[in-house]
Amino acid sequence: MDRAALAQLLAKVRAGEIAIDAALDTLRDFPFAELVFAKPDTHRALRTGQAEVIFGEGKTPAEIAAIAERLAAHGQNVLVTRLAAAAAEELVRLAPAFAYHPEARLAVWRVAAVPHTGRGTILVVTAGTADRAVAEEAAWTAELGGNAVERLYDVGVAGIHRLLDARERLAAAHVLVVVAGMEGALPSVVGGLVGKPIIAVPTSVGYGASIGGLAALLAMLNSCAAGVTVVNIDNGFGAGVAASRINHL
Amino acid sequence: MDRAALAQLLAKVRAGEIAIDAALDTLRDFPFAELVFAKPDTHRALRTGQAEVIFGEGKTPAEIAAIAERLAAHGQNVLVTRLAAAAAEELVRLAPAFAYHPEARLAVWRVAAVPHTGRGTILVVTAGTADRAVAEEAAWTAELGGNAVERLYDVGVAGIHRLLDARERLAAAHVLVVVAGMEGALPSVVGGLVGKPIIAVPTSVGYGASIGGLAALLAMLNSCAAGVTVVNIDNGFGAGVAASRINHL
Amino acid sequence: MDRAALAQLLAKVRAGEIAIDAALDTLRDFPFAELVFAKPDTHRALRTGQAEVIFGEGKTPAEIAAIAERLAAHGQNVLVTRLAAAAAEELVRLAPAFAYHPEARLAVWRVAAVPHTGRGTILVVTAGTADRAVAEEAAWTAELGGNAVERLYDVGVAGIHRLLDARERLAAAHVLVVVAGMEGALPSVVGGLVGKPIIAVPTSVGYGASIGGLAALLAMLNSCAAGVTVVNIDNGFGAGVAASRINHL
Amino acid sequence: MDRAALAQLLAKVRAGEIAIDAALDTLRDFPFAELVFAKPDTHRALRTGQAEVIFGEGKTPAEIAAIAERLAAHGQNVLVTRLAAAAAEELVRLAPAFAYHPEARLAVWRVAAVPHTGRGTILVVTAGTADRAVAEEAAWTAELGGNAVERLYDVGVAGIHRLLDARERLAAAHVLVVVAGMEGALPSVVGGLVGKPIIAVPTSVGYGASIGGLAALLAMLNSCAAGVTVVNIDNGFGAGVAASRINHL
Amino acid sequence: MDRAALAQLLAKVRAGEIAIDAALDTLRDFPFAELVFAKPDTHRALRTGQAEVIFGEGKTPAEIAAIAERLAAHGQNVLVTRLAAAAAEELVRLAPAFAYHPEARLAVWRVAAVPHTGRGTILVVTAGTADRAVAEEAAWTAELGGNAVERLYDVGVAGIHRLLDARERLAAAHVLVVVAGMEGALPSVVGGLVGKPIIAVPTSVGYGASIGGLAALLAMLNSCAAGVTVVNIDNGFGAGVAASRINHL
Amino acid sequence: MDRAALAQLLAKVRAGEIAIDAALDTLRDFPFAELVFAKPDTHRALRTGQAEVIFGEGKTPAEIAAIAERLAAHGQNVLVTRLAAAAAEELVRLAPAFAYHPEARLAVWRVAAVPHTGRGTILVVTAGTADRAVAEEAAWTAELGGNAVERLYDVGVAGIHRLLDARERLAAAHVLVVVAGMEGALPSVVGGLVGKPIIAVPTSVGYGASIGGLAALLAMLNSCAAGVTVVNIDNGFGAGVAASRINHL
Amino acid sequence: MDRAALAQLLAKVRAGEIAIDAALDTLRDFPFAELVFAKPDTHRALRTGQAEVIFGEGKTPAEIAAIAERLAAHGQNVLVTRLAAAAAEELVRLAPAFAYHPEARLAVWRVAAVPHTGRGTILVVTAGTADRAVAEEAAWTAELGGNAVERLYDVGVAGIHRLLDARERLAAAHVLVVVAGMEGALPSVVGGLVGKPIIAVPTSVGYGASIGGLAALLAMLNSCAAGVTVVNIDNGFGAGVAASRINHL
Amino acid sequence: MDRAALAQLLAKVRAGEIAIDAALDTLRDFPFAELVFAKPDTHRALRTGQAEVIFGEGKTPAEIAAIAERLAAHGQNVLVTRLAAAAAEELVRLAPAFAYHPEARLAVWRVAAVPHTGRGTILVVTAGTADRAVAEEAAWTAELGGNAVERLYDVGVAGIHRLLDARERLAAAHVLVVVAGMEGALPSVVGGLVGKPIIAVPTSVGYGASIGGLAALLAMLNSCAAGVTVVNIDNGFGAGVAASRINHL
Repeated sequence: MDRAALAQLLAKVRAGEIAIDAALDTLRDFPFAELVFAKPDTHRALRTGQAEVIFGEGKTPAEIAAIAERLAAHGQNVLVTRLAAAAAEELVRLAPAFAYHPEARLAVWRVAAVPHTGRGTILVVTAGTADRAVAEEAAWTAELGGNAVERLYDVGVAGIHRLLDARERLAAAHVLVVVAGMEGALPSVVGGLVGKPIIAVPTSVGYGASIGGLAALLAMLNSCAAGVTVVNIDNGFGAGVAASRINHL
Repeated sequence: MDRAALAQLLAKVRAGEIAIDAALDTLRDFPFAELVFAKPDTHRALRTGQAEVIFGEGKTPAEIAAIAERLAAHGQNVLVTRLAAAAAEELVRLAPAFAYHPEARLAVWRVAAVPHTGRGTILVVTAGTADRAVAEEAAWTAELGGNAVERLYDVGVAGIHRLLDARERLAAAHVLVVVAGMEGALPSVVGGLVGKPIIAVPTSVGYGASIGGLAALLAMLNSCAAGVTVVNIDNGFGAGVAASRINHL
Repeated sequence: MDRAALAQLLAKVRAGEIAIDAALDTLRDFPFAELVFAKPDTHRALRTGQAEVIFGEGKTPAEIAAIAERLAAHGQNVLVTRLAAAAAEELVRLAPAFAYHPEARLAVWRVAAVPHTGRGTILVVTAGTADRAVAEEAAWTAELGGNAVERLYDVGVAGIHRLLDARERLAAAHVLVVVAGMEGALPSVVGGLVGKPIIAVPTSVGYGASIGGLAALLAMLNSCAAGVTVVNIDNGFGAGVAASRINHL
Repeated sequence: MDRAALAQLLAKVRAGEIAIDAALDTLRDFPFAELVFAKPDTHRALRTGQAEVIFGEGKTPAEIAAIAERLAAHGQNVLVTRLAAAAAEELVRLAPAFAYHPEARLAVWRVAAVPHTGRGTILVVTAGTADRAVAEEAAWTAELGGNAVERLYDVGVAGIHRLLDARERLAAAHVLVVVAGMEGALPSVVGGLVGKPIIAVPTSVGYGASIGGLAALLAMLNSCAAGVTVVNIDNGFGAGVAASRINHL
Repeated sequence: MDRAALAQLLAKVRAGEIAIDAALDTLRDFPFAELVFAKPDTHRALRTGQAEVIFGEGKTPAEIAAIAERLAAHGQNVLVTRLAAAAAEELVRLAPAFAYHPEARLAVWRVAAVPHTGRGTILVVTAGTADRAVAEEAAWTAELGGNAVERLYDVGVAGIHRLLDARERLAAAHVLVVVAGMEGALPSVVGGLVGKPIIAVPTSVGYGASIGGLAALLAMLNSCAAGVTVVNIDNGFGAGVAASRINHL
Repeated sequence: MDRAALAQLLAKVRAGEIAIDAALDTLRDFPFAELVFAKPDTHRALRTGQAEVIFGEGKTPAEIAAIAERLAAHGQNVLVTRLAAAAAEELVRLAPAFAYHPEARLAVWRVAAVPHTGRGTILVVTAGTADRAVAEEAAWTAELGGNAVERLYDVGVAGIHRLLDARERLAAAHVLVVVAGMEGALPSVVGGLVGKPIIAVPTSVGYGASIGGLAALLAMLNSCAAGVTVVNIDNGFGAGVAASRINHL
Repeated sequence: MDRAALAQLLAKVRAGEIAIDAALDTLRDFPFAELVFAKPDTHRALRTGQAEVIFGEGKTPAEIAAIAERLAAHGQNVLVTRLAAAAAEELVRLAPAFAYHPEARLAVWRVAAVPHTGRGTILVVTAGTADRAVAEEAAWTAELGGNAVERLYDVGVAGIHRLLDARERLAAAHVLVVVAGMEGALPSVVGGLVGKPIIAVPTSVGYGASIGGLAALLAMLNSCAAGVTVVNIDNGFGAGVAASRINHL
Repeated sequence: MDRAALAQLLAKVRAGEIAIDAALDTLRDFPFAELVFAKPDTHRALRTGQAEVIFGEGKTPAEIAAIAERLAAHGQNVLVTRLAAAAAEELVRLAPAFAYHPEARLAVWRVAAVPHTGRGTILVVTAGTADRAVAEEAAWTAELGGNAVERLYDVGVAGIHRLLDARERLAAAHVLVVVAGMEGALPSVVGGLVGKPIIAVPTSVGYGASIGGLAALLAMLNSCAAGVTVVNIDNGFGAGVAASRINHL
């Protein structure tokens, strides 16, 4: 029940077309969420007119195609994350409008152009090449959310000069998403170089005492650089959304 | 070596007052950090003219007083966090300009007024009364960083109506710091109500399977609400800095 | 040795057909369990006349079929849980009376109608669609245990209005089974809305710091809502049995 | 805003005393929680007229006394849990109506008699004598919640005959709270003996590989006896509330 | 109800003084544990006539003295483990028959001589001097259980020659208790030198990645030397009992 | 170099056939292990004349066959553990003397009869049918080590009467190997029923909070029943060796 | 920008061919890393002229071949680690200069001879045969880094005489790499026998409480033998590099 | 028994002063360790003539003084680590030759001058001031082991310019000990700047998700910079010994 519907109800009250008690019962039962919350377009979506994101893992290509078609029909761009190559092949067969990006393990159905509504540039930084898939998930999420996105890859701390060479780009960014596996040190170093918000994304890149990315996660949570906040392991999508929210303030 | 010093060096080269080889050696050894980075005062500090933060735990009142006096002499406000009541008593004796806030376990030496340089309001939200000390650490950090800060305490998810009653204040905030111990569910619920950046702070409030706050930390990292980022357990200071950075974009 | 056998022994004692010492020795050795416990029908079964549950994982279709046929021959309904689609196909071929429910990964052989012997309704609630398989396991277990069961799916806390919209159904339930993965916050919110027993079921839905469902498990154990009790990760069956026991008091 | 206030508003609409737009604005802002939820006093409290529970740990005797006096003034019984002997001494000095029970580490201020409103008996069972404090917390919580409570202590599985000797009492209980530390095996054995709801409470009794009670917690979550649900380590209070809810169905 | 009581009952049956049905009812309810188990003298005790062991931690000296006096009055030796020096001083004041052994943190009240009823020698081996307290707990427990006990201390693997020098004593032992903290390697090496049963006892000696003894525990469980079994961290008592059981076969 | 060889050397010294310095050098280099240790027959073997055990996991059938043939040629029985069905098929093809036991996942090449050299019976007990493979590994290891072995399966604690029915067999055993997954409670209950050495074997049977058998392992290490010692998760082989060592004392 | 380029710039300054301001701008932007660090040849490489190491896991044979060809074209030897047999077959087909070593799971493309530039011998020691692949990774890495490498395999602590028999070789080594899974005890024993640097490499060999090699890792970190340092689980490459660095001092 | 003693024995054999059998018995029993190992001066010591290290934690001042006096009497320097201020005060009273260094929590009794027998300089680097105590433990251990030691403190990665400013000192060091708590990133960055052996020491500095230093430990083990090896949390002593061994090659 939106404001219009509620206005109608009150008009009926005024016109005497409905008893007060009946109006009270209606009010008590109406789907108030729609009144209370301006935009109940839910948690898993980017802002209106831009893109819906489908978590591809554990869904069949047919299921994904069905959801995507419904969304695209409403004019929404669609981003599918965590999509293996084999599933992507089938998906593209079912819904040929999808373009698959294997290095990022994601597929995009671009229905409408995405204007840059964010205020500045979001810079996505990675420590190693193996962190690329997670970084691309963040980058695509932010791009489809209406942000200018740049990439700065493979600047891990063990070759600190590569990072320092890019200090201009680091300083120019509005928000930074810093992606690293193994020891997860990169956000701390970046955090000491810039005074902007940094969203750290641990990845499951590593082995042994990496414990599936927990080592990087713990390192990032313990960062000695203030201003660093952290999302779940491999959660490029979440980082992209958070960066987009900050960039749209 | 700043630009001026470097210009002097080059002038000497031009004037033939210094051999090129000697200039090369000087250049090789110059403290390039000062050239490269505009303001290397970064880590552990808030932005210029506002406040320095001293981590009180593990320092003696005498050590804290000494550091604080030096800072205050330079016109900086000083915030001491994690300060037990006994230590605070001694600190105030040594440096009477400090005001101690026992409920937040922090002391403030306010040398200068702090203008609101941030763009909007930072709202600090807690699940329970026991999360207050961590929340106050975040709030004071942000306030001394030049932000308008509001508090919304004791609105945990087990009494969801208290949170919903405050939906206006939630919606009005520019950035939210959400503090919770035990099951750490509050940031997920808040994340579904507002579209602003949310910094989640797990606290060590709880016992048994709380494992010193790890349960809340893991819950927040796994939040189904996108846009939530997380800091270390009990790290109110870090959340305050991150919120301030976002609010100053 | 049941009561009849024991009566026979005592009759022999009375008749002098057996010496007291010999009777003492016999008594010392008799299978007292059968005397002591009225119904040694064991832990893995639901109450008589309703259903036996077979844990499908790690059993071959042939093994399941064999067990099921013996049970069905005694008039018992049979529920097979954790049954993959491939195994189910083979099972249905071997025992065509089974109906397979792929979304719940379970198969049912319904021999007899199941009357509603429980006192109220058991409401099974999920946070997300991915929690459905575990929820269905709980729901089917409870239904075959003689309970009226309702389902309320995909009402996770990040879209709190969906949950609040269902407040009538929540309040009407006698016992609630609340299923959630990721941050596991739903039982805490539900626990604040109703005063009925709530059985929380963490699921392994999630990735990274979810640690196979441990994050949700810990969150539920630390719930700030009193009245919430917890079962093992993905243990829909256990939740169904516990709910059924409560509903049959 | 309750139903009466809302009726007044609608009456004003009907009477034309308020414009529809103004009414819409009012409706949008009204504190709907008070409409939606009949009694938002939920979490942390037992049912009306009986007892409020104060978690004593981390509160000063003065704080506890202040809260308690306010509650008692409204006719509520007050239960303080996790109260060390030294704090209790001070509390009783401040509020002499409190009776302290050192073996349970709790204090009770009994303002009104508590009638037995529950349907059956709640039986609290412990494995060892060291589990007593947690068990008493459960027992007192349930008693003050209006339940008949019985205790069966020190019947751990390593002396199984003690437990079997009590099979009559086990069978007679309506709900069972089973408290155990160390290997946490008792709920599994009890779960095989009775068909009633069992709430398992792990305790931190043990050392080394007990890991502060985690060993017992994990064991209970993995119980091979269906119908067992679990609460947090040492959470006697939560078990008491859950048992009371079940017993009041 | 012991055998005598049961014989009386059967005699009444034979004499017709009691009806068979009444006898059946009596039998059904009799405390069968006492019939079934020859010696329900429980798990926490050593074999008859030797010693009872009291876990000293968490008990007041007065409580310990009270239990001990009752046991000693029945002619039993009493061993108190995990007894801090301050508590011991008070205990000896209350019950002067106790002798305190500070290096082992245990007190002994020797009422009767303990004959060597075990078949061979139990050898207690430690890696370092800091493991001594746990080793002494094992040694005293075994000695009071009627075993010849020898000690071989401070033969850790980093000085392997010390261990090899003792190869005669190792080979001569009937059962070995091997106590080690830190990396817990000693049982593996000893297990390669002798073909006898080895009970490994991890201790909490260490720091950091020792994680309270978990490192040593895990190492012992993963021993490449077959024939090694393990008890809980610091559980000298358990090792002593297990060794005594083996030595009494 | 054995004693004979050493005597020869000394005889040469006496006879002046070798210089003292040369003798010193020889002595310095002699393979002293053979002198020092009576039986360097290594860690992975059972006692002479009985069986060698090959850990099958990670070895190809060809590798296993090669090792086995060499052992069998020396008259040794060979036991292969952790052998998947597919690998076994190939192994039997390569070495037809092997008999494969799929329920135990092991293969046996019996070259010689194995007399019962142990003193009593080793009883292998399991909680559930899923623990059978681990139990069989223990049983076969012990049997090939020269022990009379009995099996008592599926007597888990949730149906305690089944265990109690077997109290005669429990009491008659010389050594007990108790195998259980999930909550791992069985060794504690058995430990309270018998006074013999008990070797507890946790299994990885379970899911979720079982954490691959860690829950059962921790429970067993925390057993309140003294006399219980523990081996690694699923380590039936280790339990069999330890039991055999005890039974051969 | 190297020293030559910088000299050119200064020469231009002296010659007045460039304005000081322009020179300042050039200096500010020059790629200083190349000035500052003598050899920016990065972290993942061995010293010049010897070998580059490619982590094979997660790369396709085609990707590996492409990288390798480029390196080989510059005269560098190439080592590919963690290369499964199937991938190796394809790699050798694509780049026939590669030789694959299946027991070590690595491939080598030897372009140039590798002189022994290290000072002494690096001895690689393993506890068991299953540790061989990790050990070979260390050995090959060190060999291609210009070191004399020896191997001493299968000398685990449960058969201590095998290790002691090799005491001459242990003492002769300059640096030792000690590789062990399961309980990880070998480095502690070796550390007591020699006074040279020891790099301990835990492996994931084991099962159950080995927790993927964490048990061995923790044991090595807690080694009672000083002078032992540790690398990540299965990180033979890292150990080889560290040993090579030490050997080249 | 050293070579001289053995030569004497053989001389007696040759002279016929001792029977071959008696000689054999002597040989069989001789303390072969002293033959086999050149310097059985054990694991806990530095090289001869320099210093013994006493782990102060858990020892009384009187115990420490007694050990130290015996060592000093033999001309050895003595280093006591982990010595609290209160204990140190008492120790210095008992043994006034000790000098206490509170910032390092260690005491030194310098009997003899320590010449620099190592080849180069050991550089001890710390991330923060709170890591100083651990770093000093490493530095003093290395100094008393005969090494030139330099300190470079408070150069954590969040202010990378401080580290880069010191690149000359980093490059000049022969061996580096890098000490860091919190996220433990410093060794990775240093490892990318220098090609020398780096020993990483995690410290317990931090809180919450630092988990007592485990976060830093895991980060260091996962370092992307090859050549980094790791010791236990807070194990400055172990790092000092390892660095000294490397520096003495």
